[in-house]
Amino acid sequence: MAVGLGPLPEFFPVQGLRLGVASAGIKTPGRPDLVVIALDEGTQVAGVFTRNQFCAAPVLVTKEHLSQEAPRFLLINTGNANAGNGDQGVVDARRCCQSLARLADVPAQSVLPFSTGVIGEPLPVDRLEAGLSDAFADLSEENWTAAAPAIMTTDTLPKGASRQIVIQGETVNISGISKGAGMIRPNMATMLGFIATDANIEPGLLQQLVSELGEKSFNRITIDGDTSTNDACMLIATGKSRAPQITAGSADLPLLREALNDVFMTLAHAIVRDGEGATKFVTIKVGQANSVDEALNVAYTIAHSPLVKTALFASDPNWGRILAAVGRAGVPDLDLHAVAIDLGDVPLARDGGRAEDYTEAAGQAVMDAAEITIRINLGRGNVDETIWTCDLSRDYVTINADYRT
Amino acid sequence: MAVGLGPLPEFFPVQGLRLGVASAGIKTPGRPDLVVIALDEGTQVAGVFTRNQFCAAPVLVTKEHLSQEAPRFLLINTGNANAGNGDQGVVDARRCCQSLARLADVPAQSVLPFSTGVIGEPLPVDRLEAGLSDAFADLSEENWTAAAPAIMTTDTLPKGASRQIVIQGETVNISGISKGAGMIRPNMATMLGFIATDANIEPGLLQQLVSELGEKSFNRITIDGDTSTNDACMLIATGKSRAPQITAGSADLPLLREALNDVFMTLAHAIVRDGEGATKFVTIKVGQANSVDEALNVAYTIAHSPLVKTALFASDPNWGRILAAVGRAGVPDLDLHAVAIDLGDVPLARDGGRAEDYTEAAGQAVMDAAEITIRINLGRGNVDETIWTCDLSRDYVTINADYRT
Repeated sequence: MAVGLGPLPEFFPVQGLRLGVASAGIKTPGRPDLVVIALDEGTQVAGVFTRNQFCAAPVLVTKEHLSQEAPRFLLINTGNANAGNGDQGVVDARRCCQSLARLADVPAQSVLPFSTGVIGEPLPVDRLEAGLSDAFADLSEENWTAAAPAIMTTDTLPKGASRQIVIQGETVNISGISKGAGMIRPNMATMLGFIATDANIEPGLLQQLVSELGEKSFNRITIDGDTSTNDACMLIATGKSRAPQITAGSADLPLLREALNDVFMTLAHAIVRDGEGATKFVTIKVGQANSVDEALNVAYTIAHSPLVKTALFASDPNWGRILAAVGRAGVPDLDLHAVAIDLGDVPLARDGGRAEDYTEAAGQAVMDAAEITIRINLGRGNVDETIWTCDLSRDYVTINADYRT
Repeated sequence: MAVGLGPLPEFFPVQGLRLGVASAGIKTPGRPDLVVIALDEGTQVAGVFTRNQFCAAPVLVTKEHLSQEAPRFLLINTGNANAGNGDQGVVDARRCCQSLARLADVPAQSVLPFSTGVIGEPLPVDRLEAGLSDAFADLSEENWTAAAPAIMTTDTLPKGASRQIVIQGETVNISGISKGAGMIRPNMATMLGFIATDANIEPGLLQQLVSELGEKSFNRITIDGDTSTNDACMLIATGKSRAPQITAGSADLPLLREALNDVFMTLAHAIVRDGEGATKFVTIKVGQANSVDEALNVAYTIAHSPLVKTALFASDPNWGRILAAVGRAGVPDLDLHAVAIDLGDVPLARDGGRAEDYTEAAGQAVMDAAEITIRINLGRGNVDETIWTCDLSRDYVTINADYRT
């Protein structure tokens, strides 16, 4: 079902970072569901996390550990979110970190745990621990391709992106993986995204980069408006490239930022392209708003409207639903005559009504494509924002009605 | 598909109010799609309307006419919303009022127009006008049962409620009809609701009653979170009962308010019970909130979550989705340990995790029923709110994917 999402790219290994994969049988026996990422000493890690107040135990523990020790390991499982498990969830997440720490002879606080899967079921700690030695033995710089599918839940395809750039004659590698595919309206981060580079990045800048790039990529996608309890997006810099350290003032920062942005965007879009039941990849551009909040409110109101989403699924240019969504988005004193709505390059609405030269055939041609752009010009300010979403299909309902059975 | 929605009740005629129905072929030839409601002189009318800024032409014209003349006619069509039609929509709505006014020999401003149906297609004024004389000739106090289906769009069943009370020895009748069944998150009113009584109600009190009763009934339901462009809820008091006038200080007001509330609630719930594709009627109660807004934010976040709605459809007690929705509802400084979530009478979540004695079987038993109550206690204030919604089924997608074909 995934829209325009190809196979995994060839990954450029990130020096100083190794990945190990195992099948721990956390939910489904035999499938890869455990990933350990080992970081060389000196690696910097920064992250952004879910704003859901029922945030999962691993998110709490990762934030705590980040503030205590330099990270040496990321421990990721799928099949169980370890969310909604109260204090026991935190105890369980800590226990997993301790087990890996013993195996690797590092402090438990240098392990960052991440979980994804069903909410509200106790983490099967024993099974997870039993899988750790396999994952540990599997550690290799070459394992990105194996790790990508091992963090999937209802994703139909693994998601990855990789770039190589040259900074002052030295090669810098960037690789990342992410997963969706439901409960996706990231708020500070996607469900799970891990992006690593061997660039040497000044720590303050690293946090700034993950916040800035995450905001414009993972925080601009929505599948169903449901913010997950487990969202986390981590940016890792091992510093093992021989390129000089990048600081906020570096002349090389724009090149690095662009390559990182490319990886963030590719991974974020991949989540939408593989959204649950998705048959359309939809870009919503809101222009001439008075503020970022105003632009995003309009964009998300359209993106979350079940009526717009089902019309997209049906390839039906039912633009009245888009117009109704704009009208209820809470824009104060909206001048309807100033609002312009376009479907692809076809003007839909002008002067509070249907554009004069609009034809159903022209609208239909845009809607028939798998990738669709909806443009709203509010005609009141100078702020533009873009978000990405998918349609709402019968398969979305089926996938989520059958999720636990 | 409608959940627990029976056939129309026996309607008590409202003295001083007659209804006429015709088939004007506005969208579908042969189906009743035009209703004229004639009001005797001296009738008071008050209404609440959509807050969608792209509000439909008939809503604009009704508001304008209400401020100009004492209403004598309501003119209601289905099959076309006359929304998103720019200035031409207003011209068309006025022309329809003028035609009926000529027929009845009243000022055009004493006619209030209402439209429902597809957005963004020109109102077929000629066909509507051609049907007016049939509707006019059909006027009768007994026509409530015929009028209810003639305002339907995707509704599967007509919706009505009727009560008779005695005030100071005199009979007072209350009858009402409403329609849904998609684009339903009323904001000041439902898609269309018409409630009439022959009580004599002081005009200021009438507006207060429609605002107050509409707020707690039609404004507390949601099907898909999409606020219609055409919402209107009208309360009509003909004053033809021989009971004395009801004012804000009347000892009889509580009796009248209770009967009116009963009709408002029945009609509002009927819309949810017949929500597009609905298989469940869901009551969401949020208690111990700090404010009405806070309680409603939590309630609507749950009600609009596609993941909660698909779990309801599947009768799956996937309470993690409810918890995730509470967590993203934007309640500041929410103390997770104080939050209690119950499914029917079964405690689901306590102390930030699953309730100790919760069993899947107990949750399943509640979810298997067609009517389900979800209770959230935030444990922080003393405001309680209740809203009603339905599930999200494959049929919802089918109905809305095929709506225009």
